[in-house]
Amino acid sequence: MKPPYVIDGLQYANWDRTIFEEMHRAGVTAVHVTIAYWENCRETLSNIGQWNRRFEQHADLIMPIRTGADVECAKAENKAGIVFGFQNCSPIEDDIDLIQTFHDLGVRFMQLSYNNQSLLATGCYESDDPGITRFGKQAIREMNRVGLVIDMSHSAERSTLEAVEISERPIAITHANPHSWAPVLRNKSDIVLKALGESGGMLGFSLYPLHLKDHSRCRIEDFCQMVAHTAELMGVDNIGIGSDLCQGHDDSVVTWMRTGRWSKEIDYGEGSKADAGWPDPVPWFGSNLDFNNVASGLLDIGLSDADVNKIMGENWLNFFKRSFGSLSG
Amino acid sequence: MKPPYVIDGLQYANWDRTIFEEMHRAGVTAVHVTIAYWENCRETLSNIGQWNRRFEQHADLIMPIRTGADVECAKAENKAGIVFGFQNCSPIEDDIDLIQTFHDLGVRFMQLSYNNQSLLATGCYESDDPGITRFGKQAIREMNRVGLVIDMSHSAERSTLEAVEISERPIAITHANPHSWAPVLRNKSDIVLKALGESGGMLGFSLYPLHLKDHSRCRIEDFCQMVAHTAELMGVDNIGIGSDLCQGHDDSVVTWMRTGRWSKEIDYGEGSKADAGWPDPVPWFGSNLDFNNVASGLLDIGLSDADVNKIMGENWLNFFKRSFGSLSG
Repeated sequence: MKPPYVIDGLQYANWDRTIFEEMHRAGVTAVHVTIAYWENCRETLSNIGQWNRRFEQHADLIMPIRTGADVECAKAENKAGIVFGFQNCSPIEDDIDLIQTFHDLGVRFMQLSYNNQSLLATGCYESDDPGITRFGKQAIREMNRVGLVIDMSHSAERSTLEAVEISERPIAITHANPHSWAPVLRNKSDIVLKALGESGGMLGFSLYPLHLKDHSRCRIEDFCQMVAHTAELMGVDNIGIGSDLCQGHDDSVVTWMRTGRWSKEIDYGEGSKADAGWPDPVPWFGSNLDFNNVASGLLDIGLSDADVNKIMGENWLNFFKRSFGSLSG
Repeated sequence: MKPPYVIDGLQYANWDRTIFEEMHRAGVTAVHVTIAYWENCRETLSNIGQWNRRFEQHADLIMPIRTGADVECAKAENKAGIVFGFQNCSPIEDDIDLIQTFHDLGVRFMQLSYNNQSLLATGCYESDDPGITRFGKQAIREMNRVGLVIDMSHSAERSTLEAVEISERPIAITHANPHSWAPVLRNKSDIVLKALGESGGMLGFSLYPLHLKDHSRCRIEDFCQMVAHTAELMGVDNIGIGSDLCQGHDDSVVTWMRTGRWSKEIDYGEGSKADAGWPDPVPWFGSNLDFNNVASGLLDIGLSDADVNKIMGENWLNFFKRSFGSLSG
């Protein structure tokens, strides 16, 4: 059994042709790729420029995705579609008009905060969360208008619940797992997951070891049982994969992700002083070639073909179709 | 009676030679001038560049202040000293290293937030205040180290109390009044004022009409009685003037101050739809020529010459001397 669509809700790799070949070989239809953690507007424009070069150089393997329909094109052309997203609101700086500008440039997801307090919302590592800010309320309205999806993967609980409530369009948590399964700050409470599901939003299940029960030793059966359990909580139409696959980076990259430019001290974030670098991947998911393991695992614990197809890609595709266009068009 | 020092804890004018001549004529020793509201790093560097041109063109009237001792030089040379300050942390963007960089360029005050939530602290117009953020705690330590004064004039209550507590050096509220006297969001509770005084911090009394009882109709006697009352609350060594004098701007400037780039809607801030522009000044304080009215008013309600001298400038001078140097030097 091979799912018709394989769509990944988040990856951040040290991109090169080898990875694109793996996506192609594995039949990956589309991947939401991170193009900013702490980058400001100008730096993000350069990151978009780098992707435009990749589209030019690897046009046989990858193509940009701007609409749900583009995913169908990618499938027809047997290419991996690339969706741009920000893990933080730093690229728009303090300028609400940059929301449309980045949407015009192809960005389709933006997290309102990344671990820390942002100008829009609170991150999951802050000690207190006052909810969506004044600027945040304006930004959500503008993101709704243009079709830039609100992603709350690294945000704190109250901000996330308020984003679900304030947003007129369904939001996403592109890469996280239930806190009840793996109790780390990045994972989400059942209250959040239920509200997300009821609003028509999407959760992408993370395969990043620090979000998993037993971390790098997590068994595929446990992961798949958790998926099945969450399907009952949220509805099987509101879940997908958001692997958080981070391939080929050295430790300086995880340090940048955790500390940006905001601290003179080291902050270990999800890691620890004893384990400061990248965690080892689980044995059954280390590259784009391993999506078949996940699909098989979901079938093995008793999910139907139809449900596995939804989780592996169809749900994200439907969400993209509903979410990437402007409200008026 | 003429106070030996006249130091103003905040002004933001449409600067020109006329204003510098008025400062000179009135014997103003030093003024903390705003060089950023929402400006980012690059824009703030341009604003500093504009000031460097003014120092070049009006060297007979004004000079830059970097230390408390520079204020003595300004007095000796019969010039008005200019102290740079930010009303927001936007100039440092997300980069803790820019704190030292801007201190090196002469900046001596920085507000941690301006009305809205910032990356460091909460502004007074947000509905909830979670206190100083993760980045904010790091920034306070760095500001303490280099000698950049924390200013909480536009910040919310909890953030302000936490800043007093976390900072190892006294902080300032350069321009505000007691909320008990004029209950607007920008004014400060007695709890804040008491904590500020006990920590050796400074309050500058605002003469901006919207911070005054009866706004533009505020009587000088009422203002001066409020000063005397606050001296009892905070200690007469911890208060000064922070006039918030805003001369010569058209209404587009107050719109920028209130809305920056963060909203597509008009935000009236301290004003209202019916009264959206600059408020009329009180009749007894409309320019730098009117500091003598304030000094006389304070004497008239019974303050001693010594206390009036402190309030009109000596307290700010002592605070500058204690605050503008690095912790090690």
